[in-house]
Amino acid sequence: MREFKEYSEQQLLYYMKEAYKEAETAYEFGEVPVGAVIVWDGEIVARAHNSRETDKNALCHAETSAIDKACKTLGGWRLHKADLFVTLEPCIMCAGACINARINRVYYGAADKRYGCFGGFTDLREKPFNHLPLVYGGIMEEECAELIKRFFEELRR
Amino acid sequence: MREFKEYSEQQLLYYMKEAYKEAETAYEFGEVPVGAVIVWDGEIVARAHNSRETDKNALCHAETSAIDKACKTLGGWRLHKADLFVTLEPCIMCAGACINARINRVYYGAADKRYGCFGGFTDLREKPFNHLPLVYGGIMEEECAELIKRFFEELRR
Repeated sequence: MREFKEYSEQQLLYYMKEAYKEAETAYEFGEVPVGAVIVWDGEIVARAHNSRETDKNALCHAETSAIDKACKTLGGWRLHKADLFVTLEPCIMCAGACINARINRVYYGAADKRYGCFGGFTDLREKPFNHLPLVYGGIMEEECAELIKRFFEELRR
Repeated sequence: MREFKEYSEQQLLYYMKEAYKEAETAYEFGEVPVGAVIVWDGEIVARAHNSRETDKNALCHAETSAIDKACKTLGGWRLHKADLFVTLEPCIMCAGACINARINRVYYGAADKRYGCFGGFTDLREKPFNHLPLVYGGIMEEECAELIKRFFEELRR
């Protein structure tokens, strides 16, 4: 694993494991298993998982739901000191939500070649958006990818 | 104005005026005046305006709030027969939400050189996303732009 600023490897694994627990909850509900937590000043201020099917709502990805909760918990839309941990590379909507919410850093697990917008499918960092989070991928990559793979294998059966 | 399929010019103006009324509501609340409506089979199924400051929430743009309401009204996340009318060209998050919700067509008023992601600042249609709405800009362009211009002029005073 590469070195990341400000968090120790132990801390990174701790936060990603918490995001992974959310992904497991999504899995139990029959949702594509993606989970996220948002950390502000060392504290987890929001936890969420993908619930698009359950909530019948296109906006209910793990990241957007976590940003929604973090805004409510912190009482503001500028999450400039917040870091997002998510088990899968964010899609275009969620990457855009990170930009709008001024998320400081995004740590993701598995890359997503089909929908990922921080390098997997495309990379928003190639354009000079008004804000761009720092992005680090590959934390607990195998576990995060394996859970999603298992979900889709079972779905096909 | 260019010709648009399926809606008459009169219909386009009707729906955009309804979106504009939502933008006026945002203006009254001291929000950047952007409004949106979603039309399904000729009927307006959702109306919303930007409420980021009032709701202290980065997700509360006119388009995302309208998509949220439309999913709730229609009871599903696939808005494949829905058309979005919005007074300002969608930002990256909202353009992404249109992709995720499978919005059929996006009609916008004013272009947005700073944040617009359907040609203004960047154009998501350059990439082969899994879904892309058809996009038509410039409907009631002057009125929509003028309202936003007035808002920012008053803000600076």
